[in-house]
Amino acid sequence: MEQIESHACCGGTQSVWRHRSATLDCEMNFAVFTPAMAAGERLPVIWWLSGLTCTEQNFIAKAGAQRYAAEHRVILVVPDTSPRGEGVADDPAYDLGQGAGFYLNAICTPWATQYRMYDYITDELPGLVAEHFPVTERCSIMGHSMGGHGALIIALKNPGRYMAVSAFSPIVAPMQVPWGEKAFSAYLGEDRALWAEWDATALLETAAEQLPILIDQGTADSFLETQLKPEIFAKAAERLGHPLTLRLQPGYDHSYYFIASFIGDHIAHHAQALNGSSPHRRQ
Amino acid sequence: MEQIESHACCGGTQSVWRHRSATLDCEMNFAVFTPAMAAGERLPVIWWLSGLTCTEQNFIAKAGAQRYAAEHRVILVVPDTSPRGEGVADDPAYDLGQGAGFYLNAICTPWATQYRMYDYITDELPGLVAEHFPVTERCSIMGHSMGGHGALIIALKNPGRYMAVSAFSPIVAPMQVPWGEKAFSAYLGEDRALWAEWDATALLETAAEQLPILIDQGTADSFLETQLKPEIFAKAAERLGHPLTLRLQPGYDHSYYFIASFIGDHIAHHAQALNGSSPHRRQ
Repeated sequence: MEQIESHACCGGTQSVWRHRSATLDCEMNFAVFTPAMAAGERLPVIWWLSGLTCTEQNFIAKAGAQRYAAEHRVILVVPDTSPRGEGVADDPAYDLGQGAGFYLNAICTPWATQYRMYDYITDELPGLVAEHFPVTERCSIMGHSMGGHGALIIALKNPGRYMAVSAFSPIVAPMQVPWGEKAFSAYLGEDRALWAEWDATALLETAAEQLPILIDQGTADSFLETQLKPEIFAKAAERLGHPLTLRLQPGYDHSYYFIASFIGDHIAHHAQALNGSSPHRRQ
Repeated sequence: MEQIESHACCGGTQSVWRHRSATLDCEMNFAVFTPAMAAGERLPVIWWLSGLTCTEQNFIAKAGAQRYAAEHRVILVVPDTSPRGEGVADDPAYDLGQGAGFYLNAICTPWATQYRMYDYITDELPGLVAEHFPVTERCSIMGHSMGGHGALIIALKNPGRYMAVSAFSPIVAPMQVPWGEKAFSAYLGEDRALWAEWDATALLETAAEQLPILIDQGTADSFLETQLKPEIFAKAAERLGHPLTLRLQPGYDHSYYFIASFIGDHIAHHAQALNGSSPHRRQ
């Protein structure tokens, strides 16, 4: 593992690392923010999953999250959004291939050999992080758009593992929107029964844990009505009695200006679960 | 004037505008952040001047300044760093020509006709802003690197006009460092007597106002010893009795991670002058 960037930031360190991923069979970057820490101290981790076209850079440069992570005493880990590199399968479109891994394990050619972001995010990278950074086992997960989808499905598929989950403008029902239909067709094939394993709304049906979900969604988001459709998820959550706070933020769009405006709320929400009590576990 | 971007952000609006500049004889972009405001309300302005290679985008995307501007009730205006466009004189180097206007009025060919960023920032753009945005006449100025140089010289050359001035990693003595020597040679010619009008350390000698200056400088800044040399300015300020707070921030570099870490302090410092009392005026 090689450090490729390191910047003092908000009293701590914003670093970027490169490693050879066995799961993805390519070189991968990921970013870590660690607050100022005492010798021997360990802190919980919030995982951030980014959206379509993003790398590990977008969130760390634009969200302004570091000051809140420093304040709330949490480490941020920010992976890339897909396998990368010259030898990696790709597609000219922005919403398929590199930059568009959708946080699943692909089963179709030519994607299946390397597009295994689910295993990378839930298994390989946590192991690497635990080995090299001063983290505790307590963790939570959040993301934006495609990364909001990733955060939701990963939390729902791993009951008991993440102490909080939240999303900005997530793709909540990929089986029912063009982004998801295109990606799932390519990565998973045409058998829609297999798609349900990677669809947050479908996964909610069988959720083994009542982990409260926080979603912020801008009402001026140009993808709201075609790709995001949070009402599908809200209706399922209501029917199933799953605790969901869906905040429709008037006038906000899909950009990092939206994320930067509310990231403080999300980190506070996660930190309460990570560093304080976790009420949903007592139900 | 044409609006080319508008994003809800921190309860207010981050917008980007394009207009035809008569001073620079080209199309120019600038960015404005306005907090949530009541009808008829007017707020003071903080001007932000960016560094080499930057446009109006860098600060608004990376500094995380909007939340502090919203909190302290100030408007942010963020110009580009030089004239731009196909017909505008340029140089292949990053530190001359487009992206490197140095906030002065050039007098040498081929720069003199369009490289008049001093007039643009102090005259044309303030007029445009006053005409189109809900601003008061109270204003202050800050910047980074080349833009820190710009903020310092503009405040020093206009006593009584700016109620606060501060800088991150500024070029404080352009006559004595390679960036400044290269730019001033090109824009102003070889007569160094003319350079002194655009050098903060030289201007401090004849400052008509004891406006307190706040400077943050990272100690791990790779340009510190060759291009920035804040000790030159600090010694002049001490000798002249000019109020200067120079904070050497251990481990911080020249990046926006540094700016994002301390922008809250700077905006609070400016807001106190803009919205509260201005102690230096009573001396």
